Amino acid sequence: MPVLTNIERCSRYEGQEVELRGWLYNRRKSGRIAFLQLRDGTGIIQCIAEKSVLGEELFTRIRRLPQESSLVLRGTVGADPRSPSGFEIRVTGVEVIQEAQPYPITKKSHGTAFLSDHRHLWIRSRRQQAILRIRHLAGRAIRDYLDDNGFLLLDSPILTPNACEGTSTLFATEYFGRPAYLAQSGQLYQEAGAMAFGKTYCFGPTFRAEKSDTRRHLTEFWMVEPEVAFADLDDTMDLCEDFLVQVVGRVLQDGLAHLQVLERDLSPLQRVRKPFPRISYDEACLRLARLGTPVEPEDDFGAPHETALANSFDRPVMVHRYPRAVKAFYMKADPENPARALGVDVLAPEGYGEIIGGGQREDDLSELEAQVNRHGLPMSAFQWYMDLRRYGSCPHGGFGLGFERFVTWLCGVPHIREAAAFPRTLERLEP
Amino acid sequence: MPVLTNIERCSRYEGQEVELRGWLYNRRKSGRIAFLQLRDGTGIIQCIAEKSVLGEELFTRIRRLPQESSLVLRGTVGADPRSPSGFEIRVTGVEVIQEAQPYPITKKSHGTAFLSDHRHLWIRSRRQQAILRIRHLAGRAIRDYLDDNGFLLLDSPILTPNACEGTSTLFATEYFGRPAYLAQSGQLYQEAGAMAFGKTYCFGPTFRAEKSDTRRHLTEFWMVEPEVAFADLDDTMDLCEDFLVQVVGRVLQDGLAHLQVLERDLSPLQRVRKPFPRISYDEACLRLARLGTPVEPEDDFGAPHETALANSFDRPVMVHRYPRAVKAFYMKADPENPARALGVDVLAPEGYGEIIGGGQREDDLSELEAQVNRHGLPMSAFQWYMDLRRYGSCPHGGFGLGFERFVTWLCGVPHIREAAAFPRTLERLEP
Repeated sequence: MPVLTNIERCSRYEGQEVELRGWLYNRRKSGRIAFLQLRDGTGIIQCIAEKSVLGEELFTRIRRLPQESSLVLRGTVGADPRSPSGFEIRVTGVEVIQEAQPYPITKKSHGTAFLSDHRHLWIRSRRQQAILRIRHLAGRAIRDYLDDNGFLLLDSPILTPNACEGTSTLFATEYFGRPAYLAQSGQLYQEAGAMAFGKTYCFGPTFRAEKSDTRRHLTEFWMVEPEVAFADLDDTMDLCEDFLVQVVGRVLQDGLAHLQVLERDLSPLQRVRKPFPRISYDEACLRLARLGTPVEPEDDFGAPHETALANSFDRPVMVHRYPRAVKAFYMKADPENPARALGVDVLAPEGYGEIIGGGQREDDLSELEAQVNRHGLPMSAFQWYMDLRRYGSCPHGGFGLGFERFVTWLCGVPHIREAAAFPRTLERLEP
Repeated sequence: MPVLTNIERCSRYEGQEVELRGWLYNRRKSGRIAFLQLRDGTGIIQCIAEKSVLGEELFTRIRRLPQESSLVLRGTVGADPRSPSGFEIRVTGVEVIQEAQPYPITKKSHGTAFLSDHRHLWIRSRRQQAILRIRHLAGRAIRDYLDDNGFLLLDSPILTPNACEGTSTLFATEYFGRPAYLAQSGQLYQEAGAMAFGKTYCFGPTFRAEKSDTRRHLTEFWMVEPEVAFADLDDTMDLCEDFLVQVVGRVLQDGLAHLQVLERDLSPLQRVRKPFPRISYDEACLRLARLGTPVEPEDDFGAPHETALANSFDRPVMVHRYPRAVKAFYMKADPENPARALGVDVLAPEGYGEIIGGGQREDDLSELEAQVNRHGLPMSAFQWYMDLRRYGSCPHGGFGLGFERFVTWLCGVPHIREAAAFPRTLERLEP
């Protein structure tokens, strides 16, 4: 009886007969021998089928089998130093489960629109598999880091009653006769969580109906948002730094084979080590002027500024104390300069831009009320949030990391759409 | 210098001075001594403050401090066999970070509406903390089980273009000029995932705009949906069984203290062992008739049937091969009786009802097309899904577990709303 296993584990069964279940990824023929590349989601392995073993009829069928036909294949595992996995299979039997129709994704290069239309099939290709495996490993590393450091996963709601930061970039729905909106962030709920549990996080989908069709934007994306009670801006920056060092380190360790498939230059990831440079917005502006990419006074950074700034360091850089006017209402003012907010952005190297935004939150009730009024927000919608300042307020902070943008950078791929299994952009809601 | 730590770790520092940061949970006074219950999200500990140590002014302030005031407290850790944690703190210093306003949740019993309006504060109470800790542990156990068993986490999209199973229970939104809907399930996308990766799962929020206001329904809830290629109904039932045994076992192991806070009867959880009874729908109908809860012929089960059936077994029961007419279009027909679908529901004990629904999917293209037509669904919307049957189709199956319903049962609480941090129901979209 052959051992039922998968391609990843084949190496354990050298010299034994195994049974694999998968799909025909590629094949070439050479007289009485057919070389079949079998994929099963855990890897790809070369399988050598001989006419003398399979017989005329089955061999002829195998030789003509369309790509992506599903197979149950039995054979003997042998070492093969020429193969990427180090092993190959000498086929002893094949059962064709389904003979595929001619597969639409061929070796010729397809346009992005075509591949995106066939995303449900495109994810079978080696490169897309490597990206989505890195996504999986990065997600696991993030959860493990937070869980192991005392954070409670507290899922923030998606359906929310108020358009807290204006309705223009929100998706709206009708909720049993009332308006509701899809959350852009779970942070405010995490602040309630931190006051209850000390440290919490959410890691779920968030939504932005932004009309920006860039390689950095999705309309639906996952975000991880940890929040910590009794933490100030410095504590928050320490957390950003430790989080990134640990998570990137774990992805490098567990995902090396996938990064190699992507031909990822590992050195920018290997340089993610403590300490990250920490510079203020004002210092960053001086540096940007010297670099020939000046910023308008008191203005937020655009993508060119982020790229120029990040390129001037060898690892992620933390920029803190932005102008309060360009940042969200809940950020705490810098007591040493009330025109500056105690916020921090972490910029990734290689032009990948801001991957983390965070900071210390306003914990004083009257200051926060003044901010809500200053931003023209509806006070009634924030009464529950104000309660967090009425009953046991304390310094607290946290951050948000855009997960797909992070994965895009880890993989070194040019466009964020490849970092999601079924990406949603301005132009695309299918498949 | 006191050691900065938290309540959970205090036991490591017996005889030493520690610094804790948290909130006043309760207090009582007795002359020159004040007993403060401090909570910090990791636990609750009794702290003994003496006038002779703190001085008249601070002691007087402490004695009057409102519940939920935030504190930094220093003191010496001592063993105290009478305390639930086994330890207490002899206070050496207290810093009041914020003196809370009078806290709205008092010892008197509040109605559910009041507590739900104050959900952002209610989650600070001991019972709610225990439930949300069990939720966290159950979520981690689920992810670890699947990750350790070769499943890839492949997030299904939330925004979807088609109302696959009718619009009546869907939340709709406008997606840049077109209609879009919030997904009720990620399963169809997981089928694409399983054909690409062998085994995948999603674990994210799903949405049902159902007008059923029961103790079992939320409009927004998390669902975990694993899917496996080359798996039939029996394989799927094996997976359900192993999944529940392992996850419940891990929660019992890691979450015992929280289950004890909830005074959960552990025996129904301890009885979650293999093998689960597996009975067909037809067998279940005979049993229900004997139990005095007959089912209309070919009808689906209602809550009373699920409860009666589950109560007749000592552990979760798997009911398979329901009438095809009451099940979704994608279920594979039983080759031995085409009126039955190769689906399975897992019913939890103690009246908690269906926690898992799953089964084997239709893998034959023409059968699936016929089903889409039979259900009056728009074929064009399913072309991508049909592709999975055109290119390497194979027997495959999986299931969906409603996470909050599962947590409600684990905790033995009467209403599903306590299993979510910020539950959404027919009547409630806040806070």
